[in-house]
Amino acid sequence: MMKTIEGGVTAPGGFLAAALNVGIRSSKPDLALLVSEREATVAAAFTTNRVQAAPVRLCKSRMAEGRARAVLINSGNANCCTGPRGETDAARMAALTAAALGVPESRIFVCSTGTIGIPLPMDKIEAGIPKVAAALRRDGGDAVARAIMTTDTVDKQVAVEIVVDGKPVRLGGMAKGSGMIEPNMATMLAFLTTDAAVDARAWQACISAAVEESFNRITIDGDQSTNDTVLALANGAAGNSPLSPAHGDWPAFELAVKHVCRELAVKIVRDGEGATKFVTIRVQGAASDADARKAAKTVANSMLCKTAWFGGDPNWGRLIAAVGRSGAAVDQALVDISFDGLSAVRGGCMAPDASLADLAAVYARKAFEIVVDLHLGFGCETVFTCDCSLDYVRINADYMT
Amino acid sequence: MMKTIEGGVTAPGGFLAAALNVGIRSSKPDLALLVSEREATVAAAFTTNRVQAAPVRLCKSRMAEGRARAVLINSGNANCCTGPRGETDAARMAALTAAALGVPESRIFVCSTGTIGIPLPMDKIEAGIPKVAAALRRDGGDAVARAIMTTDTVDKQVAVEIVVDGKPVRLGGMAKGSGMIEPNMATMLAFLTTDAAVDARAWQACISAAVEESFNRITIDGDQSTNDTVLALANGAAGNSPLSPAHGDWPAFELAVKHVCRELAVKIVRDGEGATKFVTIRVQGAASDADARKAAKTVANSMLCKTAWFGGDPNWGRLIAAVGRSGAAVDQALVDISFDGLSAVRGGCMAPDASLADLAAVYARKAFEIVVDLHLGFGCETVFTCDCSLDYVRINADYMT
Repeated sequence: MMKTIEGGVTAPGGFLAAALNVGIRSSKPDLALLVSEREATVAAAFTTNRVQAAPVRLCKSRMAEGRARAVLINSGNANCCTGPRGETDAARMAALTAAALGVPESRIFVCSTGTIGIPLPMDKIEAGIPKVAAALRRDGGDAVARAIMTTDTVDKQVAVEIVVDGKPVRLGGMAKGSGMIEPNMATMLAFLTTDAAVDARAWQACISAAVEESFNRITIDGDQSTNDTVLALANGAAGNSPLSPAHGDWPAFELAVKHVCRELAVKIVRDGEGATKFVTIRVQGAASDADARKAAKTVANSMLCKTAWFGGDPNWGRLIAAVGRSGAAVDQALVDISFDGLSAVRGGCMAPDASLADLAAVYARKAFEIVVDLHLGFGCETVFTCDCSLDYVRINADYMT
Repeated sequence: MMKTIEGGVTAPGGFLAAALNVGIRSSKPDLALLVSEREATVAAAFTTNRVQAAPVRLCKSRMAEGRARAVLINSGNANCCTGPRGETDAARMAALTAAALGVPESRIFVCSTGTIGIPLPMDKIEAGIPKVAAALRRDGGDAVARAIMTTDTVDKQVAVEIVVDGKPVRLGGMAKGSGMIEPNMATMLAFLTTDAAVDARAWQACISAAVEESFNRITIDGDQSTNDTVLALANGAAGNSPLSPAHGDWPAFELAVKHVCRELAVKIVRDGEGATKFVTIRVQGAASDADARKAAKTVANSMLCKTAWFGGDPNWGRLIAAVGRSGAAVDQALVDISFDGLSAVRGGCMAPDASLADLAAVYARKAFEIVVDLHLGFGCETVFTCDCSLDYVRINADYMT
């Protein structure tokens, strides 16, 4: 009994949000504030990139306590590779937000997204923080979802309602990201809110599992960002008894969390830079899940596969060549490949009943699934990706300057 | 005393070559034959892709004896993923070539390059083999170098002369490849010839080392082919005493082999599909050579770096983000990056004296070098690559159909 609702991150009770343009970029909103009226339990996931932005370091240090009242997010500047000044700036953003809200500084998280290597325009952010704090609204979810966008063309929100202890409990989420996306604590910002009361350890375990099955299964260009962050705030405003695996409604709650993460992850891929097609790569029959993942990711990131999808060229040789170089165990004489259920490759050769025209018709669809069966074992994995178009190159040939 | 000469693979004594169009593709020459008048000692390297073409399997089986009189090469069709029929076709190509030349079948090697998954038009090839054998010429090097091209826009040849035992000894080479190129027994065909007499084990060791430093250091798109083959034939026509590391002229010979491989590898990258720029990535100061290689390869294959090079956008944040996700040990506060000697990043931040305009001027060059110093140890590696342009996507969006 999961119901989709409106409102994004402010759909759950006790959350407020606001966003403004403070001049970090020309006219689009660039400073967003998400506030929980009650102290929330935080679960999180961060980039595994060894180069990490100052706000990522700040958020990680806050996870020792794992309690939040607010998250301040700026777009237009990643505050990454900005040295000691970047660390000071991130801390100052938190301190000013704490002062504006009258809450302890340790309860403020900070995220940044945008260009790497340019110091933040702190004068603009300092002037903006009291203004954005004064603009907080119960229906601010839309505004903050738009304010965190960079090369995104659409905002990415989802919210659902379930029942826990007989009470309505809501989950909201928003994400940004359409380039520098690769599945390894995916390359984006995502924020989840819930008014459920959740046991802190159970909340982190639940978010870690949901991130693994959603954001870590997507790839746009194989490039991983320095700023990836998922923050999930549970504030208990719904009044339920704290959720943990011992709670009878835990399975429903866990399912709802995974649904929200999965929906946000899919929205990111659908809005991949320049993407014209949404492609699901499923590898099954692998010697192990790890092998299946290697094969699926190699296909998903293969430039030759991605350009063939863009061109609608049913060149299955590029798929099998990518599987072959992935490092997964492969016996080429056993490999089967299908496009939306249509057999393309059987036993490592073109399927006798396949026609290139029929296969091309699948590639002409806006979304399709490629299934690779290695017939070696029980390992399987699914990865979501998009094609690589002329627009991907155009967008990325001129971003910084 | 190494002198560059003309003639490609037929520059050394005792080699003949010819090429014809036999109808595998519309009008360009598509069947090439390289013959050694004397039995040659063969050294080789093959793709590490687990999906391998039938001719690759045939060549590998021939390496037990490692003696060759001829190599037959067709372009336009990779004879890969063609099942038992593909194996039979490759064996038949060798048998017919052996018959046309009057030599044992075990002395014939076969290579194919082109589209994956379509059976060879064997009627055309069967009719063509006697014709190409009848057309053999001492100056056929140019013709075969052109006949093995697929999406290549220029032929790739090199030849040098050195002195061994006081006698002139010649080395020739040709290669093809401009897409599906990734450094791991690089993704292409290359053929080396020499009239030197060389000890068989020394010849294989020399070729393996030279391949490692040349073809395995290049990448165009990170996609590895199923047909990669390097064949190196030494026929002893020069009359020198057999070369091995014990020979006084070995260092000069080894250097010449490496030079030929390196020149061919660089020619492949310069002719990368859609490439507009030649980029050298050097990583030094890494914790190990393996780490340096991971970092260099990740930068070289990063879509965001490649599109930034194309656009001339000096976005160094993408370089450091790629280094950070490469798996190499990185302390971001120690990372220095320079563009053609111009400091871009110092200690993980934009170098104080750097200007984006100056950095953009380097990216506007046709060829430039990026040096990343991790300041952690003594590991280093150099990789050669190219940018990713709109033409790369255009070329690959429509290749098979």
